[in-house]
Amino acid sequence: MLAAHPVLTGVATAREAVPGMHDRLLLHAGPPIAWERASGPLRGAVVGALLYEGLAGDEAGAVALVERGRVALAPCHDHQAVGPMAGVVSASMAVWVIEDSPHGGRACSTLNEGYGKVLRYGAFSAEVIAKLGWMNRVMAPVLAEALALAGGIDLRALLAEALHMGDEGHNRNKAGSLLLLKLLAPWVARAAAPAVAEEVLRFLGDNALSVLNPVMAACKVMTDAAHGVAGSTVVTAMARNGTDFGLRVSGLGERWFTAPAAVPEGLYFPGFGAADANPDIGDSTITETAGLGAFAMAAAPAIVNFIGGTPRDALDATLEMYEITAAEHRHFTIPALGFRGTPTGIDLRKVVELGITPRVNTGIAHRAAGVGQIGAGWVRPPLAVFVAALEAFAERYGF
Amino acid sequence: MLAAHPVLTGVATAREAVPGMHDRLLLHAGPPIAWERASGPLRGAVVGALLYEGLAGDEAGAVALVERGRVALAPCHDHQAVGPMAGVVSASMAVWVIEDSPHGGRACSTLNEGYGKVLRYGAFSAEVIAKLGWMNRVMAPVLAEALALAGGIDLRALLAEALHMGDEGHNRNKAGSLLLLKLLAPWVARAAAPAVAEEVLRFLGDNALSVLNPVMAACKVMTDAAHGVAGSTVVTAMARNGTDFGLRVSGLGERWFTAPAAVPEGLYFPGFGAADANPDIGDSTITETAGLGAFAMAAAPAIVNFIGGTPRDALDATLEMYEITAAEHRHFTIPALGFRGTPTGIDLRKVVELGITPRVNTGIAHRAAGVGQIGAGWVRPPLAVFVAALEAFAERYGF
Repeated sequence: MLAAHPVLTGVATAREAVPGMHDRLLLHAGPPIAWERASGPLRGAVVGALLYEGLAGDEAGAVALVERGRVALAPCHDHQAVGPMAGVVSASMAVWVIEDSPHGGRACSTLNEGYGKVLRYGAFSAEVIAKLGWMNRVMAPVLAEALALAGGIDLRALLAEALHMGDEGHNRNKAGSLLLLKLLAPWVARAAAPAVAEEVLRFLGDNALSVLNPVMAACKVMTDAAHGVAGSTVVTAMARNGTDFGLRVSGLGERWFTAPAAVPEGLYFPGFGAADANPDIGDSTITETAGLGAFAMAAAPAIVNFIGGTPRDALDATLEMYEITAAEHRHFTIPALGFRGTPTGIDLRKVVELGITPRVNTGIAHRAAGVGQIGAGWVRPPLAVFVAALEAFAERYGF
Repeated sequence: MLAAHPVLTGVATAREAVPGMHDRLLLHAGPPIAWERASGPLRGAVVGALLYEGLAGDEAGAVALVERGRVALAPCHDHQAVGPMAGVVSASMAVWVIEDSPHGGRACSTLNEGYGKVLRYGAFSAEVIAKLGWMNRVMAPVLAEALALAGGIDLRALLAEALHMGDEGHNRNKAGSLLLLKLLAPWVARAAAPAVAEEVLRFLGDNALSVLNPVMAACKVMTDAAHGVAGSTVVTAMARNGTDFGLRVSGLGERWFTAPAAVPEGLYFPGFGAADANPDIGDSTITETAGLGAFAMAAAPAIVNFIGGTPRDALDATLEMYEITAAEHRHFTIPALGFRGTPTGIDLRKVVELGITPRVNTGIAHRAAGVGQIGAGWVRPPLAVFVAALEAFAERYGF
């Protein structure tokens, strides 16, 4: 995990870049889930993706396609992809391609939509579909050309720098998004007509989450580098589909261990509260799995304005995570802790022995499709799922 | 000082925007100084400016112009301007214009040149002059149009955000420079031909000090807002010309109190050491005067990689400055200190009573003209100058 070196190498359509992708497949965040058990935001995002692809003309038509099995659902993680919140990926959506040349790893993630009504929170109104159209048909080709001109972007270096600028790489990606903008901007000006360049630079600059999706895919190639090590109790994926939380363990192959997802604690936007909140959703816990997010929160004291708590709580979150991790990161360091590496590599045994579950930062989605984000906060996955995974580990290895 | 609201409102030539500017005048950093006493980097920058203006054809010609009194020297501060390091401003150079509408204040600063051989460190080779030509003749008109399209940039808001992203606003302006880039980029794409937009976006993005000069002018309008208050012992300017350190006091008018500038302590680039260092130089101490720079260092723990010390030292620097300041800033806050406002408004009485002089972050210039930056670190102005100012205060007010 520490030796991985994620580089942003390209932008392509999911159809081209995502293994196993086809026109009747939708990927989603978290572990596998049947449509019947899907939460509001995931259902809304599935509807939106089918409208965007032109496979359905309205909500009822979209639901019918899924219910009749004319469209399949599968986890992003099973197709070398990750997505924030609902995490829905359809064939014609553009994806960032991230590669880890030391291990030959590769992962994809869609372009981040910014704020307001967005597919990832389950919105599927005409404005959502129109924005997806612009992003995928106008912006994506420009980004593809700009990135090619730039010769790729070293996301490990970008993340290391962003941690020194108050990001934790999950809920706070202000600095990382600006660094991405900086690295692409001159090439965008070369690649696009001036009016398009202006729009693209404004869209990227206005979105302090621009870099979240490629960062998530970078975290996936990092955690993938640690996956499949016989006898290893390191957690290599944590993900939620809005109903279930799931994790995978390095030494236990592709099996998901799941339990019901919890509702986050945090700060709600005016007019909303915990009763409106959907259970935890999204693949973005891959950041914590890779030693970022809540694990790096000591680097990001200003984040408490967004997710609640005090700067001291942010420091304590990181300090607590050293208790359950196998290593300190070589490349991701925290100035306020004397440049100590972030706690990295959740060890199942430590979690169960100490009863300390990973802390996870997150956005909070409304439980109904189409409403969108209603807050941000933090959550801990259920201890039971770590216990179950450790029992399976003992069984598998004959302890 | 706390009520000031600096906004970046335009880009113009110094001839147009700087009060009292004319073609035979060069402004420089720090208190007034005669050519005979000027240090190497200031001399080099004066030579470079005269070459750039076409007033001299070579170094000897430039020196002769100054020695014969054909060109006058005056402090930037006396012309509502500030400049980093040598701080030399000539008539045809472009300047950022910063305005403080609550108090009607106005200040200017040149465009930052970036790294390597640069005029502000006293370099005047052909490449330095060529770069100044491109900056002032190609980039400046684009920035002027982009800024007009943007409708100005709120530098108080930018600085408040940059402090939450690990900047201290003096030696570390990584985040602030990216925020400036973000706010200008779409308008640059509209204002310039693609090839020029590409160059401008690359130049701004590659320079983590892009925002330093406008930040310094923002600090000047903030400290000017506190200047001229009868009976006030608040320091409203600190500046160094490479030979002398000087300060002004709110209740003591335009008088400079001066003493020899000290040599900074810090980290030197390979091959250089303290024996090569010029005494402290530049108007950039206006940032500390306004509650930023070393005073805000607790916000910027990563800066110790550049100027030396530990993150704990950075925290302590800010904590110490609370001892000698009159207020905590309303708008500039430090997440790591529970969002406490930065220590702002150096009180002459506290400095003298406690014997604690302001701590100042700084770049370190080679003492010879044309070599450039050889390190970065920190320094304290001599206590004697604060004592002299307090004695003058007692005399002026009859204590």
